[in-house]
Amino acid sequence: MTRAKTAGRLEPGATIGILGGGQLGRMIALAAADFGLKTVVYEPEISGPAAQVTNQHMAGAYGDEARLSAFAARVDVITYEFENVPAETVAFLAELKPVRPGGRLLAVAQDRWLEKSFFAERGIATAPSARVDTLGDLEKAVKTIGPRSILKTRRFGYDGKGQVRIEKRAELASAWREIGEAPAILEGFVPFRREVSVVAARGIDGAFSAFDLCENEHRDHILARTTVPARVDPRTAQEAIEIARRTAEALDVIGVFAVEMFVCETHGCEALLVNEIAPRVHNTGHWTIEGAETSQFAQHVRAICGWPLGATRREAARVEMENLIGAGAQEWARLVEEKGAYLHLYGKDVAAPGRKMGHVTRLFGNEKDTQDRRRARQKARPAAFVTDAPTNDR
Amino acid sequence: MTRAKTAGRLEPGATIGILGGGQLGRMIALAAADFGLKTVVYEPEISGPAAQVTNQHMAGAYGDEARLSAFAARVDVITYEFENVPAETVAFLAELKPVRPGGRLLAVAQDRWLEKSFFAERGIATAPSARVDTLGDLEKAVKTIGPRSILKTRRFGYDGKGQVRIEKRAELASAWREIGEAPAILEGFVPFRREVSVVAARGIDGAFSAFDLCENEHRDHILARTTVPARVDPRTAQEAIEIARRTAEALDVIGVFAVEMFVCETHGCEALLVNEIAPRVHNTGHWTIEGAETSQFAQHVRAICGWPLGATRREAARVEMENLIGAGAQEWARLVEEKGAYLHLYGKDVAAPGRKMGHVTRLFGNEKDTQDRRRARQKARPAAFVTDAPTNDR
Repeated sequence: MTRAKTAGRLEPGATIGILGGGQLGRMIALAAADFGLKTVVYEPEISGPAAQVTNQHMAGAYGDEARLSAFAARVDVITYEFENVPAETVAFLAELKPVRPGGRLLAVAQDRWLEKSFFAERGIATAPSARVDTLGDLEKAVKTIGPRSILKTRRFGYDGKGQVRIEKRAELASAWREIGEAPAILEGFVPFRREVSVVAARGIDGAFSAFDLCENEHRDHILARTTVPARVDPRTAQEAIEIARRTAEALDVIGVFAVEMFVCETHGCEALLVNEIAPRVHNTGHWTIEGAETSQFAQHVRAICGWPLGATRREAARVEMENLIGAGAQEWARLVEEKGAYLHLYGKDVAAPGRKMGHVTRLFGNEKDTQDRRRARQKARPAAFVTDAPTNDR
Repeated sequence: MTRAKTAGRLEPGATIGILGGGQLGRMIALAAADFGLKTVVYEPEISGPAAQVTNQHMAGAYGDEARLSAFAARVDVITYEFENVPAETVAFLAELKPVRPGGRLLAVAQDRWLEKSFFAERGIATAPSARVDTLGDLEKAVKTIGPRSILKTRRFGYDGKGQVRIEKRAELASAWREIGEAPAILEGFVPFRREVSVVAARGIDGAFSAFDLCENEHRDHILARTTVPARVDPRTAQEAIEIARRTAEALDVIGVFAVEMFVCETHGCEALLVNEIAPRVHNTGHWTIEGAETSQFAQHVRAICGWPLGATRREAARVEMENLIGAGAQEWARLVEEKGAYLHLYGKDVAAPGRKMGHVTRLFGNEKDTQDRRRARQKARPAAFVTDAPTNDR
């Protein structure tokens, strides 16, 4: 088979370049392998989860243009597995090969203020927020937003990093120092009922397809569990997916991305507030590997290769994905005993606290969900599983 | 996580050594990656389908003891993805690390005469056969078995290679020359109704578990399609699985293996004749990737790592797996359009005639099988699909 493109489609045998070598890159590489596609991983580290399953691994800095050029020369299309790839790296590579999901999505997702503005311009609600470039801005922002708020750096935040909770005015100066006096936003404290996400894809032909709405629980600022479908009004689910569709179209996305949202309750009605965009495959979409007809990783590969999107149908009445974090990975020995538990481990040697080591998916309410398994699961479920208090402080 | 064994179980992070680097090795490596296990592929070729997805690839001859020792030192358990690994290689490695499914299974599977004797000793029927070491043996054998027969080399036969069909006595000398005057067996011509296979696993704890009976169609001596469940009497299916269980126990198998059988009809009743053993994961088990709760590859990894076997439940009323052979791989462009078709390609560059390039699996009769899809499949199915005449001449 040749590596040429046919009508915008890459052929099997073509090579996908992946920026970043963590578990998301690993699962993209595994999905690509199913289709006979090759992968090259580029990352600053000399090895990582993706390097173990890829055809070729290139260690290099994101600013090393010679090395980036060599990477681009080896691949037919480029994607990224995390949102903090420098915009300059993507701009440089985009001159050489298509970079998908795309630079506009990445730019918006990388900057909390751009992100807020993007949704505000479209009349899509987010938590109240203000731009903060100085301590003076922060003092002014607190006057409109109120003292109970969260100060978040505009860039490079994830898993609760780069953000400080503020309870009273006296804490402003220390909070400002704590985030390194970096450009930031102040976000009002929002109590919400549930946290949800849309994992969706847009194809090269403009086709849009979303997986079912995910309901997410966090612990210590890190995703602990996703349950599908989210327990929301069907109209809320539809609205959430519509927001994702508008986002994909406005930013000309090609590939899988996610939009995280809060479901609030006002006067007994559900209302959505967009939290943030992830310009890539997403932890809340891992359930799709067994739980949907096409996994988010296969869908991403299809989209970035110019192939038609796959069907997103859910495979069971309910699907649950639980992250294995830090020492939680030691659960593997119990999980391989549990019938119907799909265990995934990412090949990381050191189970540092807070590190995502793997995940496990369970399908409920289809024919596989027998009485025995339900009982086994009840026993298996840790009694002390408590999620964060449900607010946007994460 | 440490690489130590706990109660006979390898831990995630452990390394599986795979002898052979074709598509079966590739799919074992992909299944191992899901569990956070590492793989090293050892093969004479400098690259191949498995090399693309493995942590480490070692090119080396099967007789190179220094290189084999280095391979053994890097891994915690060794398996093989094809049956023609020299017995001496396996014996050498077995002194250094556990080799699974195991040397006894391999020895029997490698030698058609040992194989026949193994089943005969247990009262399990096979096609009538006789051992042939000389042209004289062949002439004698024809007297008991009859002239319509197949002369097969005892060793190194696959996909119709190493065998000659005989129609009449005049052809004996030329047939004998054609197989290179190598030790052989003469097998009587057996008309059968269907060809079936049991893909099964035995765990380190002696647990045995079989997937549902597969029905197989060949074209030009190569597997073209597997359909599950096989259209046989339930008692026949049970008997087939019982034969596999007895085989596994007698040969102390640890891992996945397959037994191919013919279903004959005598006086309106079905009878099984064992054809051959495959001491490894098997092409007729590829449907399990999407069609069973545990894939044959995950099951094999579980077994050889000393983990408990997974559930083998079928995911749909009927599952069909079709091989993409040679230029058939060009079907990919149509298959990525077909909703519900699971495409697998093996990363082979050259689509030589008869070469297995990939496969596609379809699930029927579950909720995903809508009217639309049935219609699409009807159209997609090649009208000229004709299988070999159903006899053991393959």
